[in-house]
Amino acid sequence: MFKQNYSSVLLEKAVEEFASLPGVGRKSALRLALHLLKQPKENVERFAHSFTALRNGVKYCSVCNMISDNEVCSVCSSLQRDKSIICVVESIRDVLSIENTQQYNGMYHVLGGIISPIDGIGPSDLPISKLVERVQNGEVKEVILALSTSMEGETTSFYLYKRLSGLSVKISTIARGVGFGDDLEYTDELTLGKSIENRHLFKI
Amino acid sequence: MFKQNYSSVLLEKAVEEFASLPGVGRKSALRLALHLLKQPKENVERFAHSFTALRNGVKYCSVCNMISDNEVCSVCSSLQRDKSIICVVESIRDVLSIENTQQYNGMYHVLGGIISPIDGIGPSDLPISKLVERVQNGEVKEVILALSTSMEGETTSFYLYKRLSGLSVKISTIARGVGFGDDLEYTDELTLGKSIENRHLFKI
Repeated sequence: MFKQNYSSVLLEKAVEEFASLPGVGRKSALRLALHLLKQPKENVERFAHSFTALRNGVKYCSVCNMISDNEVCSVCSSLQRDKSIICVVESIRDVLSIENTQQYNGMYHVLGGIISPIDGIGPSDLPISKLVERVQNGEVKEVILALSTSMEGETTSFYLYKRLSGLSVKISTIARGVGFGDDLEYTDELTLGKSIENRHLFKI
Repeated sequence: MFKQNYSSVLLEKAVEEFASLPGVGRKSALRLALHLLKQPKENVERFAHSFTALRNGVKYCSVCNMISDNEVCSVCSSLQRDKSIICVVESIRDVLSIENTQQYNGMYHVLGGIISPIDGIGPSDLPISKLVERVQNGEVKEVILALSTSMEGETTSFYLYKRLSGLSVKISTIARGVGFGDDLEYTDELTLGKSIENRHLFKI
């Protein structure tokens, strides 16, 4: 591959760092680096500092593993939230997405990954025993599995089901089906088929 | 607008900084920040440092204004390049694009902007006198104007033409026309019309 000469090693390094981000190509990286060049020095200092501050200062909630500024996150320490429901998700981003809906008032448990033999991730690499402990020790009445429907996601859901089924807790999973406002025409066959299979009584 | 709660101020700040970049929305910014969280600390340090190092250490060539690690850039200090031609461009990125073609062996002059009364940029805000000096003092035989065809670009080209036309130097502009490999069908009318007007003898 022809190597672009950036005429400045400093520029080249900044471009390389931007291009190391997912979804950022070398052309965009150059655009971003040249954008920074035009900003005041203190803005660039603040820009750079925010990332080291995040990486060095980040904490994870000791209860649910969500990213947090404190030992226990704002959801786990809230008195307003329903401690009898735990929603199990793969990632921090899933929690943010669910919080965004403003429709869920229970607790979370962030696995930080899913069982994936190909990537060498087994059940013991995930905080599953911690989830079992939470269910055993607490006032938990329901565990909602909100993992993906990929093979790894299904495997993890099944494993969690096996681990939790001995305990007196209801285990549920989020509804899958045709999205609200989606056309049947553009819905994939699997989703559409399952949405008919899993039909329920019409409510008004 | 509903404000996303990122559950961590550090995460929120990093997302805000990423989202301040051109073309990066808040969703992408979150993805990038979470990506950094998964990287080793030293990589994030290097990532952040590259931007402050660029911003604080950047130099501009004292001859052509191109970004450079030294007082004079590699093009201006090269003995291999043709000092009798200067190509006038708006930005650093234009120089990189032209260098990328590996078809040009002359000098550059980076204006760092174009004349734009709306943005309050007049001729005196651009290093135009410096260009005139280069032409007067040096062995320059030709100045190529490679500015955009926007109204501001044309105005700047015309202004440069007026300033340089008294000096014994050839003033040229880059060829505009239908791109190599482009379909006539998808070429805009102005370009296609001009490409017919500016036709030249067929060469084999």
